[in-house]
Amino acid sequence: MSKEFSRRNIIKSIPLLAGGALLSQSLLSSAVAAKSPDVPAPHKGAFNDAGASLNKSMISYYQVPMQKRLKVNEQGIQGKPYADFFDSNLDAPVDMIRALESGPLAKENILQPTKAGLKTLMEHFKEFPVSGYAVVEEGGPCAYAQSRHIFPGVTTEMFKWWFCWHPIESERYYLWFPHAHIHNSVVDPKRLADTSLSYGERLYGNPNHITEYIGDNYLDGIIHFNTPESFGVDGALLKKNNFTFNASGIITPYDAPSTPLVLMIHLGRDTPAGMEMVNRYWIGTHESWDRFESFPEGGIRSREYITKAGMTKESLENFAYEMAVHDMTEFSSLGRFLPDIYRQFAKS
Amino acid sequence: MSKEFSRRNIIKSIPLLAGGALLSQSLLSSAVAAKSPDVPAPHKGAFNDAGASLNKSMISYYQVPMQKRLKVNEQGIQGKPYADFFDSNLDAPVDMIRALESGPLAKENILQPTKAGLKTLMEHFKEFPVSGYAVVEEGGPCAYAQSRHIFPGVTTEMFKWWFCWHPIESERYYLWFPHAHIHNSVVDPKRLADTSLSYGERLYGNPNHITEYIGDNYLDGIIHFNTPESFGVDGALLKKNNFTFNASGIITPYDAPSTPLVLMIHLGRDTPAGMEMVNRYWIGTHESWDRFESFPEGGIRSREYITKAGMTKESLENFAYEMAVHDMTEFSSLGRFLPDIYRQFAKS
Ligand SMILES: [Zn+2]
Ligand SMILES: [Zn+2]
Repeated sequence: MSKEFSRRNIIKSIPLLAGGALLSQSLLSSAVAAKSPDVPAPHKGAFNDAGASLNKSMISYYQVPMQKRLKVNEQGIQGKPYADFFDSNLDAPVDMIRALESGPLAKENILQPTKAGLKTLMEHFKEFPVSGYAVVEEGGPCAYAQSRHIFPGVTTEMFKWWFCWHPIESERYYLWFPHAHIHNSVVDPKRLADTSLSYGERLYGNPNHITEYIGDNYLDGIIHFNTPESFGVDGALLKKNNFTFNASGIITPYDAPSTPLVLMIHLGRDTPAGMEMVNRYWIGTHESWDRFESFPEGGIRSREYITKAGMTKESLENFAYEMAVHDMTEFSSLGRFLPDIYRQFAKS
Repeated sequence: MSKEFSRRNIIKSIPLLAGGALLSQSLLSSAVAAKSPDVPAPHKGAFNDAGASLNKSMISYYQVPMQKRLKVNEQGIQGKPYADFFDSNLDAPVDMIRALESGPLAKENILQPTKAGLKTLMEHFKEFPVSGYAVVEEGGPCAYAQSRHIFPGVTTEMFKWWFCWHPIESERYYLWFPHAHIHNSVVDPKRLADTSLSYGERLYGNPNHITEYIGDNYLDGIIHFNTPESFGVDGALLKKNNFTFNASGIITPYDAPSTPLVLMIHLGRDTPAGMEMVNRYWIGTHESWDRFESFPEGGIRSREYITKAGMTKESLENFAYEMAVHDMTEFSSLGRFLPDIYRQFAKS
């Protein structure tokens, strides 16, 4: 055995969550003490699992920092009016789990974070695997993660509400991924909450500060939401395919807000089966990233950042898998409880 | 974001599996291309899943190196008479998965790798959680992982056969954990295969060289199997509890065969519900490890080894979780196919 130590966490080492291990008398521990439940993923009754018709299986693995964070979040959610929606028994569609387990995407399924890549996405989004990950080497390197979700019983209207409602309190963000989500706040919460404004007026140009675990990587970043067109998506193709929901953005490191480190595409449309969502993440650097108006010299800046951080093709590939697992887990979770929490909190 | 790089893999960095990514047309890929299967973990028909009566769920996560190794092993198994038993759709009992997800073991459930700790184990093995992990700090540090399995339809006789049969060819070892197992060989394969000898005469003092992934840690080690008593287990308590199967051993690094790095306890007994197995792993160093006759100064040597390797409490805790996940996964897998492969290959 060698004593070679090469770093594989690409964002930041995990801070030890002091105190997390002490909370062994938490709700979860007592749930675990019970003998084999008859149902793999029991819910607490606050929601009906809008995705129950999908063929799903429980998430069988969480990195240690996430296990510890869960206990902190379980305490933090106490007393909130929406605390009943906090459910750590997460699951995901079996076909998404299997697609991720089968290794990096085949070359023909890897898209570049260019205008041409986004055009291919808009023309062929139904033809890609339901989930996947890989590394984009050409023009990069960057990690690549992708998914297509169906959320029975969910509408684009609910998603718009969620993206304006949850960043107001970090505890709302916990609901979405109880093991991984730590903090969320926006520059102008009043504007985000102002229902007299349009969705774009509330969210765009109102950066979200998020901290969360992506696998065992601790991400401390700022999401700069904006229109799909601002990132290079063809507006005519959006219309043609009836994509009416958008939560796309550039993520920068918290301490380097001019450096685009992630291009994130979140698009949704209403279908008879429920809301369909198309997600893409490019994480790292790409030569085409000089094109974003709000991030001049983004290509060079991101390249410098990931070079300094020592990210390699191997570490990016691992990160891409973790990003894909994170996306699969958190959106499957959100799709389960969104209809019920919307009914209960959207109009009050 | 900081650029601090602290090493969390405690054994060795992962060699890139050149070529693994190229095998995208493998059996697995085509299975993945199929739409949502109706059954989460379909078997190929070579075995009946002896554990089907347990409440199980699929394993939803494999580190990237394991995903790539699976494709290598899928090729390697081709043409072997037992190839039909190779099944990568793994699952595990829901209560074991949940116990591991709930964080490190409570203090009162952490045993020391001492004679006294082994006595407590033999007296109270039914009272511990079905699976768990933690770090033993006192006298260590060492990672600690534990489990108790029930294998319906499996007997201690089958397990004895398996431990003498599988190390003869690495491909047999693949069957056990298709994503993680790479190599297995013994010093004296003739002796291991000699059915005129007793189980102990075949396995003890006949070291196994194994390479495998524990999570994304690459382990290159030698298992020195021996009697439970040689490690400090009380023979009277073994008898009293009817433990008739043993595959306990000390694991040393391949390149440091005098340094005990793991104390591994594998004990089994026949019960009306099937074979019951009690497993313990202590990985790292412990002051009590000077007591093993075959590893003089084992406590000092292991302490030097893990100090040089830069293992910390944090890295050991992560390794303990990975070890517990590995144990849960591989023994659940073995329990599924062992009765059928035993019927087919034990008497031929
Ligand atoms: Zn998230
Ligand atoms: Zn193994």
